Amino acid sequence: MQRIQLGHGSGGRQMQDLIKGLFQPEFEISELNDSAVLMLYEFCAPKNDFKLAFTTDSYVVSPIFFPGGNIGNLAINGTVNDLAVVGAVPKYISVGFIIEEGFLIDDLKKIVSAMSSAAKKAGVKIVVGDTKVTEKGKADGIFINTSGIGFIPKSIGFGSNLIMPGDKIIVSGLIGNHGIAVMSERHRLSFEPVVLSDTAPLNGLVQKMLQYHSFIRIMRDPTRGGISSALNEIAISSGLQLIIYEDLIPYSGEVKGACELLGIDVLDVANEGILLAIVSPHTVEPILEIMRSVDIGLNSTVIGEVGFKNQNFDGIVMIKTSIGGTRIVSMPYGEQLPRIC
Amino acid sequence: MQRIQLGHGSGGRQMQDLIKGLFQPEFEISELNDSAVLMLYEFCAPKNDFKLAFTTDSYVVSPIFFPGGNIGNLAINGTVNDLAVVGAVPKYISVGFIIEEGFLIDDLKKIVSAMSSAAKKAGVKIVVGDTKVTEKGKADGIFINTSGIGFIPKSIGFGSNLIMPGDKIIVSGLIGNHGIAVMSERHRLSFEPVVLSDTAPLNGLVQKMLQYHSFIRIMRDPTRGGISSALNEIAISSGLQLIIYEDLIPYSGEVKGACELLGIDVLDVANEGILLAIVSPHTVEPILEIMRSVDIGLNSTVIGEVGFKNQNFDGIVMIKTSIGGTRIVSMPYGEQLPRIC
Repeated sequence: MQRIQLGHGSGGRQMQDLIKGLFQPEFEISELNDSAVLMLYEFCAPKNDFKLAFTTDSYVVSPIFFPGGNIGNLAINGTVNDLAVVGAVPKYISVGFIIEEGFLIDDLKKIVSAMSSAAKKAGVKIVVGDTKVTEKGKADGIFINTSGIGFIPKSIGFGSNLIMPGDKIIVSGLIGNHGIAVMSERHRLSFEPVVLSDTAPLNGLVQKMLQYHSFIRIMRDPTRGGISSALNEIAISSGLQLIIYEDLIPYSGEVKGACELLGIDVLDVANEGILLAIVSPHTVEPILEIMRSVDIGLNSTVIGEVGFKNQNFDGIVMIKTSIGGTRIVSMPYGEQLPRIC
Repeated sequence: MQRIQLGHGSGGRQMQDLIKGLFQPEFEISELNDSAVLMLYEFCAPKNDFKLAFTTDSYVVSPIFFPGGNIGNLAINGTVNDLAVVGAVPKYISVGFIIEEGFLIDDLKKIVSAMSSAAKKAGVKIVVGDTKVTEKGKADGIFINTSGIGFIPKSIGFGSNLIMPGDKIIVSGLIGNHGIAVMSERHRLSFEPVVLSDTAPLNGLVQKMLQYHSFIRIMRDPTRGGISSALNEIAISSGLQLIIYEDLIPYSGEVKGACELLGIDVLDVANEGILLAIVSPHTVEPILEIMRSVDIGLNSTVIGEVGFKNQNFDGIVMIKTSIGGTRIVSMPYGEQLPRIC
């Protein structure tokens, strides 16, 4: 079984072999150059101006293979989604590998192949890369950074400053699957049926929603920290109260069972293929209809709304419980699920 | 002494504190958003079309602090240089941190501050970032990925296909300093005077050279694998013979001594602030004159030339030694200097 050696990160012949043998057949890295050179023209045509979206994420998930995906498609989808939620069409992706000496080349092949498939599915090109190798014991198998570039039509712009009382909070599907899939693999728990990661590109879904772009206030990709963290960030930056309803939060029975077993709140669990959006109440129905017309948006639903100004609750996320109570949804403080992404 | 905890990478409140307390004061990350949104307009003005340059690099150097720099300014300069050598004006940088639990926050502050200074010096903006924390023992202190975007005037384009027999090979200064600085720190060797890393941004130097852009064939930033690796890559992709002269290679007496002590070839040693270029023989003198007018280009010099077609030597790098011999400069095979960048 072939394994990664220090020389694979050396800048020398072994690294060339890895790039030519393994990366170039799967990615769009056409030439060994210090930077990819890309054409801007299509975004610069007269009356067709675009803004540039730029994002970065490192992936350190453990285990690297989990039900429903692996670190490779996670890294592509995560970066595609970060671009999609600001209204961008994701176009170009860079990949930076940090690999521990001794890592199985067959596992690297599986990861690279998953990245290539995910990129094709999302319609993005992996155009530039970098590989570093650490000595054994100085990393944990493999870490991947993906950075991404996308283009946003200049008429589109979202932000927490656009949110108004009465706006609706929606999610695109059942929450908590990614976090529970990784945790069950790590803790060797088995649920029936197996909980699969929801890792998926959101750009197709978002692209369809953009026909209502002037009624969309903000979109988020609620990964680390889950819905709790994303909603708290929005509440703080908008200075408004967000109210969600326990009975409206969609998640599967298996995720519910796993959360009870592990003693965690499903709202804190990471998602990798879920869109969270705040939209105008006047267009929430047609927006949901469009979302439900897409596979990954089939279970799109309203989970709450933006409250009216009330200085006691501004900047706070509240949940109305099934039994009629109300409690604050706080931002997760520390690390509940280490290395979920 | 404050240390990094797992929660600093959680997506929750501790991570927010780190971003707001430490990163936002130093970087240009204006809002906590999934992607930075950047204006393209200046590059889209009529008759002013640009191409996009996109690059990525992960930095895993050990030790992270070394004479003349640290992993932070190295990460900024390295990505700036990858953009500069394709003729781009570097503009935007993303930063992805992977930090080991227990890492000293004071050390992180020093690194972030060095990144901020390096970005200002190079005229680039750090516009988006990401932080992941691994459990103790699952990384080695800190790893940094920087990706970068720059813009290339559409009239500028370099490539190994432009190289012609008779072209001159030039470097912008004394080679080997970065690699020797890191190695001497790691092996606790002391040289008098201390060898300092040459980490520096090359974009100012390159910008001046671009007035001769149609006489520049290719530029490289000879980091990992040193001059040997960069020249071999060019020889292979151009299919031409490159000839360098031992007597013309510029390096300091301390670097010479260190290479002898460590049994390594200075041509294989990493540089982080050196430009390697192949230029037309007709303009080599004015190009060198411009380069020498810039601080970091003071010691710019010709080190060799491109040979005429000879099927026995095409695609090969040769060195003429001081004593009149000739030998092949091969691409370094494995890892000579683990984690130099």
